[in-house]
Amino acid sequence: MRQSLLFVPTLREVPADAETVSHQYLLRGGYVKQNAAGIYTYLPLGLRVLKNVEMIVREELNAIGCSELLMPALQPAELWQESGRWDDYGAEMMRLKDRHDRQFCLGPTHEEVITSVTRDYINSYKKLPLALYQIQTKYRDEQRPRFGLMRGREFVMKDLYTFHASQDNLDEWYDKVAQAYQNIFTRCGLNFRKVEADSGAIGGSESAEFMVLSAIGEDTIIYSDTTDFAANSEVIDVAEGSQLPDGSVAKHAKGIEVGHIFKLGTKYSEAMNANFLDENGRKQPVIMGCYGIGVSRVVMAAIEQNHDELGVVWPSQLAPFDVHVIPVVMKQTAQVEAALEIYEQLQQAGLNVLFDDRDERAGVKFSDADLVGAPYRIVVGRGVSEGLVELKNRATNEAVEVTIAEAITLVTK
Amino acid sequence: MRQSLLFVPTLREVPADAETVSHQYLLRGGYVKQNAAGIYTYLPLGLRVLKNVEMIVREELNAIGCSELLMPALQPAELWQESGRWDDYGAEMMRLKDRHDRQFCLGPTHEEVITSVTRDYINSYKKLPLALYQIQTKYRDEQRPRFGLMRGREFVMKDLYTFHASQDNLDEWYDKVAQAYQNIFTRCGLNFRKVEADSGAIGGSESAEFMVLSAIGEDTIIYSDTTDFAANSEVIDVAEGSQLPDGSVAKHAKGIEVGHIFKLGTKYSEAMNANFLDENGRKQPVIMGCYGIGVSRVVMAAIEQNHDELGVVWPSQLAPFDVHVIPVVMKQTAQVEAALEIYEQLQQAGLNVLFDDRDERAGVKFSDADLVGAPYRIVVGRGVSEGLVELKNRATNEAVEVTIAEAITLVTK
Repeated sequence: MRQSLLFVPTLREVPADAETVSHQYLLRGGYVKQNAAGIYTYLPLGLRVLKNVEMIVREELNAIGCSELLMPALQPAELWQESGRWDDYGAEMMRLKDRHDRQFCLGPTHEEVITSVTRDYINSYKKLPLALYQIQTKYRDEQRPRFGLMRGREFVMKDLYTFHASQDNLDEWYDKVAQAYQNIFTRCGLNFRKVEADSGAIGGSESAEFMVLSAIGEDTIIYSDTTDFAANSEVIDVAEGSQLPDGSVAKHAKGIEVGHIFKLGTKYSEAMNANFLDENGRKQPVIMGCYGIGVSRVVMAAIEQNHDELGVVWPSQLAPFDVHVIPVVMKQTAQVEAALEIYEQLQQAGLNVLFDDRDERAGVKFSDADLVGAPYRIVVGRGVSEGLVELKNRATNEAVEVTIAEAITLVTK
Repeated sequence: MRQSLLFVPTLREVPADAETVSHQYLLRGGYVKQNAAGIYTYLPLGLRVLKNVEMIVREELNAIGCSELLMPALQPAELWQESGRWDDYGAEMMRLKDRHDRQFCLGPTHEEVITSVTRDYINSYKKLPLALYQIQTKYRDEQRPRFGLMRGREFVMKDLYTFHASQDNLDEWYDKVAQAYQNIFTRCGLNFRKVEADSGAIGGSESAEFMVLSAIGEDTIIYSDTTDFAANSEVIDVAEGSQLPDGSVAKHAKGIEVGHIFKLGTKYSEAMNANFLDENGRKQPVIMGCYGIGVSRVVMAAIEQNHDELGVVWPSQLAPFDVHVIPVVMKQTAQVEAALEIYEQLQQAGLNVLFDDRDERAGVKFSDADLVGAPYRIVVGRGVSEGLVELKNRATNEAVEVTIAEAITLVTK
């Protein structure tokens, strides 16, 4: 990709209203632009990162047998009246009327829609289990949107719903999804904990949250380094340093919630008449689970945990580009030609390469490159007359002078 | 993909309210499900086709130097007041208020948002040209939503906006995008015409529509088989059979609009103060173009032109699966094992394969397979004891008995 055509409006100054590092770098690096409070455009760089997260989510969910669909954002009020949540949901639900005065909401979640979509089909235990997810735009009218992509009003979520003929089968899938979540957040380069949680307004019996450890987190979690135990402070009240039920020592930390998994049970299937005939021909309500990931929030959490004073240091699987190739002076034909040759060879090797073809000063190019945060940077400057380029590792900020062939080999490896 | 986990709720009966072939097959084949008038869920099969169209659109636009971003659906009224369209747009725009009583709309189009997103960045001719697109959910509160995905209220569009320092550069890009559109619709297997059009409410100087020829089309177009000439009947009034200006004979046809390209000029940049400094340091309004494709409508138009009495005959690049592998009797271990072997080999060859692992009667499996419409079907039945399977071409409905190795070779070829 040629940078002149990419639209990366980097900012030299730290935006005044951006309180967190992730929000600052998202704005400064030209990843997102705010359109209204809590409402953002994902600029080309930001969209590339978002799509990388989405791809990881898809790969891990497809691997355990989930199928992807896409439900609408506009949901008729009747469905929410069936479940009883139309009146319960409160001011966070965005509501509107169509030209015929029928009521709709902009979906904050899709339990009602997925139940209505599947209930005719799931008429027999033979159709179960089923696991359906979407990656879709959600709406929540936050009282005070803040921290950029952390608490927005229009945001991207992955929501998965599973359907079962027995509690045992739900339990089995719940564990399978929890493992897929571990894989997803690990691949996203996050330091996180799975914690026991309160199941809140969605209802159900058992649930857990996936929390990214961060000082800007809005939840307090309690965990121990010596065991897998971790819990939300709403669930268990243990002072830091005190002994936990299993004998280990409690630590407190702040967490950003990036995932949540619930055993819903039959709350929605009973309210909305989603029944199946079991092996004995008896009518039973479908047993459900639901599982969310804040896809756009993952982007933000990844930045909180992966940055330095110059910009974002992207985990390799999230980086918008693998390599950034920069000819220092565009008027120097030898530099441009060598850089183009490197660019094309790396693209042929299947890498995502950004080529800085802009006629800008070297300082501008380098500070923009720091903000873009590609794991590798190849700078083609004066040394090219001796066949040498500079290869920089963004994570360590270490640069080495190597031949063009060495640079290509090191980066593709 | 194993069919038991895919969620394909096929219907035996033609739904009463579906008037067009495409709407009928989308519902009968388990591609979409209606949630409210003009509002649909894309079920797994439908989403696969939609994503195939999206991929073709991305490939062709990226190839000419466009960059992808993602703008929000929720748009603040202030932007539309700047352009003067808030009051003009009428009842088709869905409007709502947030909890602080601020007005928003659900975007039917994004000229205002893209202009506001780019206007600070495009301060110099050096930043031009720029071509930015998104594939995103749009809203239009149709008086009478109909024909399934043809005239919906929530639908998927690709909208591209280009920015230029001169009219010549806009003209050049307009032609380049028109060519990309030709490539896109050709790859989607459509028989279409590019026609001169009225530029309507969006405003601007020159525009053209891409029309798929179909009896259910809502526009009348005039064209000739011997020249490239084609026009919307709103633009030119010529009786069928009469001579056109260029001497060829006029034909009339109905068309489904799947794409529209506009030379916007400076309508939005002047209204919204999007200016740049030209080479002489003079302030000029940015010259713009805008270009839409009805992505979900393409799916529908492709079905209108590619079906038989059994179901959809997908153009190869849109098909939800390349091959459908069907063991006839799941209790026959030899059939299932051979089918699994074929399934795995085809997957390793990089094909998208659907494996019918359902314990259903052969008749059910076959009629579902007709509705799925994969270009190739491999049926593993009794013949497997002699190493033979049936290979069926969905387009011709011709079946041949071949060895397993031959089937794999023919399909991967």
